[in-house]
Amino acid sequence: MTQVETKASVMEDVLGANDALAQGNRHEFDHAGNYVVNMMSSPGAGKTTLLERTLERMGSEIRIGVLEGDVQTTLDADRLERFNIPITQVNTDPGFGGECHLDANMVRHGLPALPLHDIEVLIIENVGNLVCPAEFRVGENSRVMVFSVTEGEDKPVKYPLMFRSVELVLVNKVDLLPHLDFDMELFHRNLDAVNPGVQRILMSARSGEGVDEWCSWLRKHRADAPPAFVASGHHYH
Amino acid sequence: MTQVETKASVMEDVLGANDALAQGNRHEFDHAGNYVVNMMSSPGAGKTTLLERTLERMGSEIRIGVLEGDVQTTLDADRLERFNIPITQVNTDPGFGGECHLDANMVRHGLPALPLHDIEVLIIENVGNLVCPAEFRVGENSRVMVFSVTEGEDKPVKYPLMFRSVELVLVNKVDLLPHLDFDMELFHRNLDAVNPGVQRILMSARSGEGVDEWCSWLRKHRADAPPAFVASGHHYH
Repeated sequence: MTQVETKASVMEDVLGANDALAQGNRHEFDHAGNYVVNMMSSPGAGKTTLLERTLERMGSEIRIGVLEGDVQTTLDADRLERFNIPITQVNTDPGFGGECHLDANMVRHGLPALPLHDIEVLIIENVGNLVCPAEFRVGENSRVMVFSVTEGEDKPVKYPLMFRSVELVLVNKVDLLPHLDFDMELFHRNLDAVNPGVQRILMSARSGEGVDEWCSWLRKHRADAPPAFVASGHHYH
Repeated sequence: MTQVETKASVMEDVLGANDALAQGNRHEFDHAGNYVVNMMSSPGAGKTTLLERTLERMGSEIRIGVLEGDVQTTLDADRLERFNIPITQVNTDPGFGGECHLDANMVRHGLPALPLHDIEVLIIENVGNLVCPAEFRVGENSRVMVFSVTEGEDKPVKYPLMFRSVELVLVNKVDLLPHLDFDMELFHRNLDAVNPGVQRILMSARSGEGVDEWCSWLRKHRADAPPAFVASGHHYH
């Protein structure tokens, strides 16, 4: 169908331009020695609460910065203010309901507000959405998603690109499992169907269960990341 | 900023074309005597479970049809198969992770598979997303959203267009309230801040609480809808 083909080729251009800007961001991150995590989820899956738990545990050990993406408001940034960390807010708002994701250009516009050379780990909290954020690289080292068990075990197969694009799935709100009809075994099967063997951590940002395991993951991945200045303009995937 | 202006004007064209197609759909619905509900929510807020409860209660009273929008899979349509109702699935899949919403053209492509003249109420289950579905009219009479209390009381102010664009908010999963830190009073204030006084029904598709009230709403709104054939090509908002 011609219309679909045209749309596909326009989308290829958009993604091509985005990738070029993402490489620029990545170069800047590498230069500053940042390990960058793109954190994605549905609305209300628990990203900000997890950031609070993470900062409580690791804030004095690793210099963490946060870039908050939201359609509107600075509510999430406000919740993290008490930690006195470098934080900036990118609102995707202008007109038409706002963009439903962060792209590399929006992230690029947020960077001057952050002292990148004083940051070791930068966490980018994406807009709550299981579709489009997965399509746009922003220059990150790692992609992580927070999945809430309240959303149901069928989500990996219904939103496959998101679950396929990440290297870690934080399975959140497991403290609610006794009150839900959530089939954990089927969830694992669905997740393996779209991203075989992908690492997953069962956790509850509310009860604290699994948060240490996530912090270990972050610590290890930051330590294993290639050192800064390795190669200017190098490619990534 | 020029880039933002260009983007805004492209978006205006897209929405203009969408509105024209939405009016075409609406004309077809009016002609067939359909009352059409565009049902929106985050992923996993409980739209499909609510449809199951609705069909159990009203399936023999009103001829209900369903148009399912999903990025991938026919899982939701499969769950409704036992009701033997007219149902069709529109997958928004092709390439790039799939569209994150239904638009009027996608709905238009799904209509030939439905016997519209045998349907009284058509429920369009949109893609799970709190941003873009609100931007695209599809020819519906009413917009309804399912909001799950597990998502947190801040969502109306974080995703204002969605909460502002609907005439009914179904506040779902209230059976989980004893296990959550959900501030219901603050939620009501946040909702009123973006859509003052909008009707809301506290419910649980799982326990059945509030489902009768929703069915009454649907019954009344269908009955109050203008009769079919009133005016060909009339406008709506």
